[in-house]
Amino acid sequence: MRSVDIILKKRDGGVLGPDEIEFFVHGVASGSLPDYQASALLMAILLRGMTPEETTNLTDAMIRSGSRLDLSDISGPKVDKHSTGGVGDKSSLVIAPIVAACGALVPMMSGRGLGHTGGTLDKLESIPGFRTNLSIPEMKASLAAVGCALIGQSSAIAPADKKLYALRDVTGTIESIPLISASIMSKKIAEGTDALVLDVKTGAGAFMKTHAEARALAESLVRIGKSFGVKTQAVITAMDWPIGRAVGNANEVIESIETLKGRGPVDLVEGSLDLAERMLVSAGVASDRAGAKALACRAIDSGSAVEKFKAIIERQGGDPRVVDDYSRLPKAPKEHVVTAPSGGFVTGLDAGLIGRASVMLGGGRDTAEDAIDPGVGIIVVATVGDAVQKGDAILRLHYRDAMRLQAALPLIEQGTHVGPVRRPAKDLIVDEVV
Amino acid sequence: MRSVDIILKKRDGGVLGPDEIEFFVHGVASGSLPDYQASALLMAILLRGMTPEETTNLTDAMIRSGSRLDLSDISGPKVDKHSTGGVGDKSSLVIAPIVAACGALVPMMSGRGLGHTGGTLDKLESIPGFRTNLSIPEMKASLAAVGCALIGQSSAIAPADKKLYALRDVTGTIESIPLISASIMSKKIAEGTDALVLDVKTGAGAFMKTHAEARALAESLVRIGKSFGVKTQAVITAMDWPIGRAVGNANEVIESIETLKGRGPVDLVEGSLDLAERMLVSAGVASDRAGAKALACRAIDSGSAVEKFKAIIERQGGDPRVVDDYSRLPKAPKEHVVTAPSGGFVTGLDAGLIGRASVMLGGGRDTAEDAIDPGVGIIVVATVGDAVQKGDAILRLHYRDAMRLQAALPLIEQGTHVGPVRRPAKDLIVDEVV
Repeated sequence: MRSVDIILKKRDGGVLGPDEIEFFVHGVASGSLPDYQASALLMAILLRGMTPEETTNLTDAMIRSGSRLDLSDISGPKVDKHSTGGVGDKSSLVIAPIVAACGALVPMMSGRGLGHTGGTLDKLESIPGFRTNLSIPEMKASLAAVGCALIGQSSAIAPADKKLYALRDVTGTIESIPLISASIMSKKIAEGTDALVLDVKTGAGAFMKTHAEARALAESLVRIGKSFGVKTQAVITAMDWPIGRAVGNANEVIESIETLKGRGPVDLVEGSLDLAERMLVSAGVASDRAGAKALACRAIDSGSAVEKFKAIIERQGGDPRVVDDYSRLPKAPKEHVVTAPSGGFVTGLDAGLIGRASVMLGGGRDTAEDAIDPGVGIIVVATVGDAVQKGDAILRLHYRDAMRLQAALPLIEQGTHVGPVRRPAKDLIVDEVV
Repeated sequence: MRSVDIILKKRDGGVLGPDEIEFFVHGVASGSLPDYQASALLMAILLRGMTPEETTNLTDAMIRSGSRLDLSDISGPKVDKHSTGGVGDKSSLVIAPIVAACGALVPMMSGRGLGHTGGTLDKLESIPGFRTNLSIPEMKASLAAVGCALIGQSSAIAPADKKLYALRDVTGTIESIPLISASIMSKKIAEGTDALVLDVKTGAGAFMKTHAEARALAESLVRIGKSFGVKTQAVITAMDWPIGRAVGNANEVIESIETLKGRGPVDLVEGSLDLAERMLVSAGVASDRAGAKALACRAIDSGSAVEKFKAIIERQGGDPRVVDDYSRLPKAPKEHVVTAPSGGFVTGLDAGLIGRASVMLGGGRDTAEDAIDPGVGIIVVATVGDAVQKGDAILRLHYRDAMRLQAALPLIEQGTHVGPVRRPAKDLIVDEVV
């Protein structure tokens, strides 16, 4: 088999066979396929597409580039969630403790922020001492002990994905539904979960800008999950402005803890409960959504959810006292307030631009090597739909470096809109694929 | 400027600006742009295309990656020809001496065979001692002394093309009209010719399989040439079966010499005269085609064309005695005769497959590093349209290695067709772009 023939076949719109896909993925993982051939094939895949069968075979080859975990020695239903990436989306930090407190096991492997979106690992690591790089045995022990493990991608899991993702990032080949599908699902299937709930974001702050694209991705993800025997469903949610009131890392941890204490912002609560309910039903802990909602609300009201988060933090080496004392979390020393230029209503807070501004302040990264400043971030004082008087605070920017603030402000200005007419409310949950 | 943004722009069907194209070509030439980004962009260009203006800018950037020769200190009109590559196409070896004998100067930079097509340099190097790697000063001295220089691409000429071509070859990005156009024309414009006649092949043995593709390429090439002030025209010629009776290297040199002596096969003579006439008119040596034809025929009849070839060979270090003594050229020791399985007419000799078979025998190369056996090759005893009896020879294969013969025979069998009905004659010259 010659790699150039595989490239030519896909370039001309052909369908690759399982052996050709295996040759490609194995070549990438082992380093035997030069990057320049891999990137040419990635571009051809992006522009020519892949059939559902090709996408499943790609996922399969990526799973087989590493180990598929067997969690059957830990009794209990395992369920995970995955989000395609948003701004201010801290729902993993809310959902994992709730679902674990209700009795399901949550073996959650998350990613870091890249581009304008935040990442669960970065948020967790703003908790002093919190270790996300657990080994597989440590992960299994945590799962058995506290019902949850919040970790980064192990090098044992889908190693081909790590190399492919790095190459896609620098060759303009991220935005391909088959490539995104195989990347997400290879990791989720290999981590050994029984059930999976996917949160596919759509809108200005999402990778999938339109409902149609988000729907196509959701269908692709669900189809792959089911074909590997994982109970999979997807919900499509709006990502036009930031979720909740905090964008950053430590400030998102605080908002998550507040939500676990029953004091969360309405959109974050609604989105988190929807996903948690689906997970509990999927895992068989509840027989229907109403029962799942009752369980989840009881976990919040009784304090068992926030206690579970404390236990998870402690188990993973973090300082559990942050839950009761937010001053133990890092916070940038300076604040800049963005005010309303006129009275009226906040009509837009572009999630893409606000997310970019947070990266500029130091809260995200442009390349995988960039360091993150966990204490910087943005607090949304008045969100879309809120009434403001001229001079009222809309955003509070917490920053450390004035140069970075100057770089962030034009994005903020471009992304913040005030007008005379209140924008009609929009559903957070747009669609589902079950 | 970020290279990934250039890739994204072309990927999404955008038009690249001159600065972006310059960034890409300079990056490739200097090595500052990683191969994996260059190949992703090449695939995006192949699948999304380029406007005529982008293609001109690409050509310009590739010319400026090296020197553009100034031949104005050598008096006389300079004219060159270029073929997009065929099987059995030795017309450069015929035309260069004829045109030089008629008084035009021929600064011809040629390529090596790659894939199923032969290359002028490989053919010339089957002449003992012949040097194709003349320096630029040597080339200019030859041009002044004998009116012709037959050389390989100098590293001073369009160095970006050499790197890009090598990358295209291994990433499935050869067959793009903008990329082919810029590759050919950057070298031809940089070599300093005043006029240029292009032979664009179409058919089973050509890179451009259809007339429409060949026409599009011809138009692109002519447009670029004119925009750089080079008098350019193109002729589109059929490449369905081998041209003439010889496919290989030394055997093609013999057929070229026979043609210069007035004993060439009709299709080779017709095609070579057509191109030579256009070159002579373009160069201003003749005022019209009829006058050019008279000049060219007189050069053959008088022996001045074959004497010019001798002078070129001697000037470039080769043994001029080969012209009168073909036994001084290499010849493979063994022969295998392919015979007609039944009586009738030869109805097909697939140029692509015959070309591949010649490569298999050792007459061509699969990678740029492969060595060539100049003495192997194929003699077409009965070509398309010829009547044959059962058992008559159709092809004679000259080979050295029985293993290579066994690899070549299935291609020969697949490419050779005999049937009861004579195939109607087909025009060699299909179309022109002037």
